[in-house]
Amino acid sequence: MKKNKFINKIHISQPLVLDSGKMLKFYDIAFETFGKLNKKKTNAILVCHALTGDQFCTGKNPITKKKAWWNTLIGPGKVIDTNNFFVICSNVLGGCMGTTGPESINPNTKKPFGLDFPVITINDMVKVQNKLVESLGIEKLFSVIGGSMGGMQALEWASSFGNKIHSVIPIATSYRHSAQNIAFHEIGRQAIMADINWHKGDYYKKKTNPKRGLAVARMIAHITYLSESALQRKFGRNLQNSELFSFEFGTEFQIESYLKHQGISFVERFDANSYLYITKAMDYFDLSLKGGGLAKAFMSKDLTFCFLTFSSDWLFPTSESKTIIKFLNPSNTKVSFAEILTDKGHDAFLLDEPNFHTTLRSFINGQINKLKL
Amino acid sequence: MKKNKFINKIHISQPLVLDSGKMLKFYDIAFETFGKLNKKKTNAILVCHALTGDQFCTGKNPITKKKAWWNTLIGPGKVIDTNNFFVICSNVLGGCMGTTGPESINPNTKKPFGLDFPVITINDMVKVQNKLVESLGIEKLFSVIGGSMGGMQALEWASSFGNKIHSVIPIATSYRHSAQNIAFHEIGRQAIMADINWHKGDYYKKKTNPKRGLAVARMIAHITYLSESALQRKFGRNLQNSELFSFEFGTEFQIESYLKHQGISFVERFDANSYLYITKAMDYFDLSLKGGGLAKAFMSKDLTFCFLTFSSDWLFPTSESKTIIKFLNPSNTKVSFAEILTDKGHDAFLLDEPNFHTTLRSFINGQINKLKL
Repeated sequence: MKKNKFINKIHISQPLVLDSGKMLKFYDIAFETFGKLNKKKTNAILVCHALTGDQFCTGKNPITKKKAWWNTLIGPGKVIDTNNFFVICSNVLGGCMGTTGPESINPNTKKPFGLDFPVITINDMVKVQNKLVESLGIEKLFSVIGGSMGGMQALEWASSFGNKIHSVIPIATSYRHSAQNIAFHEIGRQAIMADINWHKGDYYKKKTNPKRGLAVARMIAHITYLSESALQRKFGRNLQNSELFSFEFGTEFQIESYLKHQGISFVERFDANSYLYITKAMDYFDLSLKGGGLAKAFMSKDLTFCFLTFSSDWLFPTSESKTIIKFLNPSNTKVSFAEILTDKGHDAFLLDEPNFHTTLRSFINGQINKLKL
Repeated sequence: MKKNKFINKIHISQPLVLDSGKMLKFYDIAFETFGKLNKKKTNAILVCHALTGDQFCTGKNPITKKKAWWNTLIGPGKVIDTNNFFVICSNVLGGCMGTTGPESINPNTKKPFGLDFPVITINDMVKVQNKLVESLGIEKLFSVIGGSMGGMQALEWASSFGNKIHSVIPIATSYRHSAQNIAFHEIGRQAIMADINWHKGDYYKKKTNPKRGLAVARMIAHITYLSESALQRKFGRNLQNSELFSFEFGTEFQIESYLKHQGISFVERFDANSYLYITKAMDYFDLSLKGGGLAKAFMSKDLTFCFLTFSSDWLFPTSESKTIIKFLNPSNTKVSFAEILTDKGHDAFLLDEPNFHTTLRSFINGQINKLKL
């Protein structure tokens, strides 16, 4: 696979016991680092990627040749300044960018796992990230940050490894996936599994690829990333190539063309089975299921939280972050919170949204002063 | 086809020129009536159905054996009282319940039209309904009523045939389909067309049926019919058959089971090509494109409007009806408007929603008094 030459990874030879009770005998973690770790190893920030993200969080993605997904936020002189910080970002467990996932080779069969890959959780992803951080010799992270599913991982870090991080920055996320979000995910999965080329997940050896199903899944998800008003402002009812209706079923409205482009470009870089596993992990995520419920999900009182939400995000509305904050209130935990006013919807966390960046910069500077970095 | 014995229809042998410029040489209109037309023919109400509805608007649907879609609203002693009114409801042009549509026989080839069926508009549907009303000898309808796409037809009636109706009751609808709504429709269409059994619309003769694609399309649409809070209230994160996660890809959350049921039961009664054509007709709908824009869309000043919306309807939000009303204001047209407070989303127009029914009953009684029916 040509992408392999761009992928740095470590191999973990100890078994990983998953939340499902199943086990991976060994596994790989693909990751990138940016900036330099200081001598005291106190300047490391772990960046957690979202559903379709990867370890290439800044600069140019060497595989897609496009700008990395958080290039606006991370880099020299940027909000997460790689002149000061050592940024770590790894591909999640179950992913398709080098970390062990459904397209990896199953040691029992010597063939790709496909649906024999065990179902994973956000907590499993975080356990793997913790192994990576340990292997880098870092005892305490300056911060864990992530948006959307990355924010779920950040919250899981705060819950499972709160003593190993100074601050956590969950962005546009929730403590649990809502019924509506599960519904959108399930339909995406149904679209993939309905594709004749899916072959019950066994498409690797058949040299087929359920591209059409995966494209439909991506298009469904993409609508949820944008707000109704942003769609109306950007596309409205504008036609793509004509001033008159074509009265045909081709691509006619600009919004149709945009979505199709999102679908088509996505299937070139993403594995359909990974999409099944990672969406399922998100669906399972519910910190309130931990013993003691949400009130006891976060036990470390040394931890500082910075919740950021976007006013037009209907996938992870602000109210979900407020629910967590309500439960944090009695614990005397230090909590910052800001809702950024924008019409750009959930997608805003990936965009150059000035108020978002200013607010985050201010929080990080506060933490730099506090920790005398 | 066994459904034919339940279908009453009239054959129109004059050609129908469509908005696309294409022509149907002749066509059938399948329809039902309920109640009795009075001697003066002044008590007729035309009921327009939504995307997946049909002419069986009250009583029991003889084909699905289930209660008709507006049985809560229409019938003896009900809000639309068939003891007083003569209710007419026809299957829309492009539909699959007896009115000419893509599964009808193409006179040129003697085979089902499939994608050779011309693309249609809401206006085309209304022209066909007008033919039916004329053929029944009715010069002026007491009212035209419909929800969702039925509301689009009602608005089109008000615009095209305003002098042929006393009142119009557009419910949970809009003067134009928004970018987000077009997006949801397009993804549904993509899911159908991605199904290997679709065969570019030519599946009838191949004895196949793109059921999986159509089910995915229905599931996507169904999410938009419900509000986030109703989904959370009804299903939340409840599991279907267990208290513990299965860690498998079967149906696990109740919301998944509910959606799958919606998908599976839908494909038994609906034609995939009809779904393509009718969604496309909705996407094209935009009364503001008429000469003079929305301000001049409704020229009959004798017409009384009653707009009804639902507070949690995010598919056709209240603001869309308010936009029409804003344009109606300077014309001195009589307009009633009520937003019903409910968390049931767009679906509320089909449900036994007491405030909706009370409000509508009151409007209809007012019209009965006014017209001395």
